[in-house]
Amino acid sequence: MTEEGETVMSESSFLYEGKAKKIYPTDDPNVVRVEYKDDATAFNGEKKGSVPGKGELNNRISALLFTYLGKRGIPHHFIRTLSATEQLVKRVNILPVEVVVRNRVAGSLARRLGLKEGSLCPSPLVEFYYKNDERGDPLITEDHIALMELASREQIRQMRERALQVNELLIELMTEKGVDLIDFKLEFGQDENGKLLLADEISPDTCRFWDRGTGKKLDKDRFRHSLGGVEDAYYEIWTRLGGEDRV
Amino acid sequence: MTEEGETVMSESSFLYEGKAKKIYPTDDPNVVRVEYKDDATAFNGEKKGSVPGKGELNNRISALLFTYLGKRGIPHHFIRTLSATEQLVKRVNILPVEVVVRNRVAGSLARRLGLKEGSLCPSPLVEFYYKNDERGDPLITEDHIALMELASREQIRQMRERALQVNELLIELMTEKGVDLIDFKLEFGQDENGKLLLADEISPDTCRFWDRGTGKKLDKDRFRHSLGGVEDAYYEIWTRLGGEDRV
Ligand SMILES: Nc1ncnc2c1ncn2[C@@H]1O[C@H](COP(=O)(O)OP(=O)(O)O)[C@@H](O)[C@H]1O
Ligand SMILES: Nc1ncnc2c1ncn2[C@@H]1O[C@H](COP(=O)(O)OP(=O)(O)O)[C@@H](O)[C@H]1O
Ligand SMILES: [Mg+2]
Ligand SMILES: [Mg+2]
Repeated sequence: MTEEGETVMSESSFLYEGKAKKIYPTDDPNVVRVEYKDDATAFNGEKKGSVPGKGELNNRISALLFTYLGKRGIPHHFIRTLSATEQLVKRVNILPVEVVVRNRVAGSLARRLGLKEGSLCPSPLVEFYYKNDERGDPLITEDHIALMELASREQIRQMRERALQVNELLIELMTEKGVDLIDFKLEFGQDENGKLLLADEISPDTCRFWDRGTGKKLDKDRFRHSLGGVEDAYYEIWTRLGGEDRV
Repeated sequence: MTEEGETVMSESSFLYEGKAKKIYPTDDPNVVRVEYKDDATAFNGEKKGSVPGKGELNNRISALLFTYLGKRGIPHHFIRTLSATEQLVKRVNILPVEVVVRNRVAGSLARRLGLKEGSLCPSPLVEFYYKNDERGDPLITEDHIALMELASREQIRQMRERALQVNELLIELMTEKGVDLIDFKLEFGQDENGKLLLADEISPDTCRFWDRGTGKKLDKDRFRHSLGGVEDAYYEIWTRLGGEDRV
């Protein structure tokens, strides 16, 4: 086997490659290594690109936000940062349900229902989406989740409750930094004991952040709508959060 | 003004023309006349056609089903039949929310989520859709209804409860006739006192009926999927319900 072949072999030892991250096994079957990539996709994979530096920034922002939430009582998968683009997390069985919390109308909600982007939701809105790329991650109700047995009624209740708690906590944190939290997407999974943990990532890829003073978008919408300055926006979030140890 | 012009004037005196019915005013501001048309549309207006006899059959079936439900405690808009294709109903302000109840997977649910047509729902599923042709009647959650103020939380609760009652009652009726009730769509409106009434129509246009023995579709899916025998299927439902007074 050629050296190149060997490299390919070792490169392909990941458990799963997603659109933004790769998951690698570790010696501990209950722990995986997450590598954050610079790859960016939008509109269910229709738009593709790469944002140099994004992997590092999302890795660092996610680590910081999971740590912040954990200290305030939210059980999560994050263990520790390994390198600029890698972190160690508890391995979970991801529930195929994306939980979205919205404080203002934006994105697909505005498009689907013809609502004005930026209008305030009188109270935070919780939505569930079926995590299924083939189907385009459709909106689903609790009845659909039960029908497809994607999660139990008790897990649905817990996801909704925790998502709203995460919202409160993130609003508290971001408001202090002059950033409006418009909406975000969470994923939850079950650990080896069946315990529900907040998993995946929390980053400008999965949240909408608007600068409070100017309304400037500091998130993946810059990539989605080709607004430019994607990395700068992610870096702005990182520095507002007090981040310093960037290589 | 020419005679033709006058005809157009009198023809256009309806309050509203929808895809399947025309609504005319009466001397009583709280009462309207509904004329059931033979026109058929499907897939949000993409497919159009005409089914001779459909207007009459739907007018008769709707009248029969509203009467049946009314006797069993469901408040509704139906007053009386006027002619083969017309009925008198209480005028309501229709809430722009379509309420769908499903006993088996079919149609958009099967397509959206990739589920097998015909599979049984462990318990009846209630869905809400935003009645908005321009947006393609998208699926919405109770939070979306509240956000857009399409209905109050109390009205949502009532619609869900009544829809499930209607389901029980229709299942009871149709099972006796050898017909499986797969799913159906209801519309509700507020009368002049703010009271919530079941309105619109209940017919093979708005229900999925499958013959229990053969599985034969006896509803609008025959038109949607060009299966032929549309009027015969509607007539079959009418006769199974004991209908006789057809002209
Ligand atoms: N702690 C975890 N254990 C196992 N899988 C995880 C964990 N956290 C996230 N994942 C999964 O890792 C995969 C890779 O992430 P990502 O690149 O964002 O994928 P996707 O393209 O599905 O969005 C996703 O399927 C995500 O749900
Ligand atoms: N009792 C009522 N009072 C007022 N409007 C009604 C009543 N019942 C039904 N409608 C409305 O009449 C319209 C005509 O019906 P239809 O042809 O089915 O329209 P659509 O194309 O919107 O489905 C619909 O908007 C329906 O909601
Ligand atoms: Mg992802
Ligand atoms: Mg209609």
